[in-house]
Amino acid sequence: MTTRPLRTERTTVKRLPKRARYEREAVYRILDEGLVCHVGFVAGGQPYVIPTDYARHGDVLYLHGSPASRMLRTLEGGAPVCVTVTLLDGLVVARSAFHSSMNYRSVVILGTATPVTDPEEKLPAMGALVEHLIPGRWDDVRRPNPKELRATSILALSLDEASAKVRTGGPIDDEEDYELPMWAGVVPLEVTPSKPIPDERLATGTRPPRYVSAYRRPR
Amino acid sequence: MTTRPLRTERTTVKRLPKRARYEREAVYRILDEGLVCHVGFVAGGQPYVIPTDYARHGDVLYLHGSPASRMLRTLEGGAPVCVTVTLLDGLVVARSAFHSSMNYRSVVILGTATPVTDPEEKLPAMGALVEHLIPGRWDDVRRPNPKELRATSILALSLDEASAKVRTGGPIDDEEDYELPMWAGVVPLEVTPSKPIPDERLATGTRPPRYVSAYRRPR
Repeated sequence: MTTRPLRTERTTVKRLPKRARYEREAVYRILDEGLVCHVGFVAGGQPYVIPTDYARHGDVLYLHGSPASRMLRTLEGGAPVCVTVTLLDGLVVARSAFHSSMNYRSVVILGTATPVTDPEEKLPAMGALVEHLIPGRWDDVRRPNPKELRATSILALSLDEASAKVRTGGPIDDEEDYELPMWAGVVPLEVTPSKPIPDERLATGTRPPRYVSAYRRPR
Repeated sequence: MTTRPLRTERTTVKRLPKRARYEREAVYRILDEGLVCHVGFVAGGQPYVIPTDYARHGDVLYLHGSPASRMLRTLEGGAPVCVTVTLLDGLVVARSAFHSSMNYRSVVILGTATPVTDPEEKLPAMGALVEHLIPGRWDDVRRPNPKELRATSILALSLDEASAKVRTGGPIDDEEDYELPMWAGVVPLEVTPSKPIPDERLATGTRPPRYVSAYRRPR
């Protein structure tokens, strides 16, 4: 992990700056826990925001998809990109509507992506993408063949410019509202896995591996 | 609910068009279940993607925030916007890395937002925002006073141009891969609430209302 600062003028949080985090470790922990990012790019003057999976590997974020995807073609052309990852941790139930809020951890990354074309980098990048979603799976899965490698575009976004924003804890109400009789507090929220559903064509008796039956996100 | 079509040239799904949905009912159901949207806008040629809460009311999507927020100021100026809501439903564990996927439901909305300034519309919009996160809360909460109303910017985005994209079901593997011995299937994922945490300054014995203790998203 490099120690280059992630904070720049453009990634300095202006609204509620106390919630900002710029240390790589804090930013990377959020990226590693998230499953989906939202990729923002501009095409014909119109912003588009597309959800997709991703993986962090060292100081690089990988995105992937079909070579036909407008998002990947736009980004390959060197268009500026914004990638945002948001973890929702709870509903903050305040006494007033005005102070009602959410607990969350989010990361905003700015930059320009570069196509990964060298197979020596492309295969490990695909491994990182599989491992990000299901840690442990890369060792079991049937790995990409040359045709599949060609049918997958991978982009690398260097983690040079980013910030995190984090809200934790209970409601902060106006002093005079604390006397009001209604309940206030937090409803914690979490993305939780339930019992794995085996594929219909799975051979009878094939048991799910531990990384599936005990699936959980890193925290 | 109007019957105007949401599908336009710009919101026609090109990649995996079988996954596309354009009916208002399908789109609205996803919007009503989601908690957070990702708002894309352009400032100085750079796209930004910011997570925030929202509410659908009829054929309008409301966004809110501080009048000082760059996002709200940019959108108030008539900048084109993209609002995306994504629900992650599961990890699709295929036999091959190439066919590994996710089950999801997402909505992409394009348009231009308009500031809501009439107090007759602003207060119900704030009610919709509270009710979207915690159905039932608006009747109990201390409602916004004139100062708080002034300190809140609300934007309305008319739902004129949108599409949904939905993936469900198990992995679709290459025919020859079905003989491979590894487990395949789906790990369902869901955003789940856990036990509400009462605020430290809550009067002893104040019980959470049912909309908190039995909190769940509409489905």
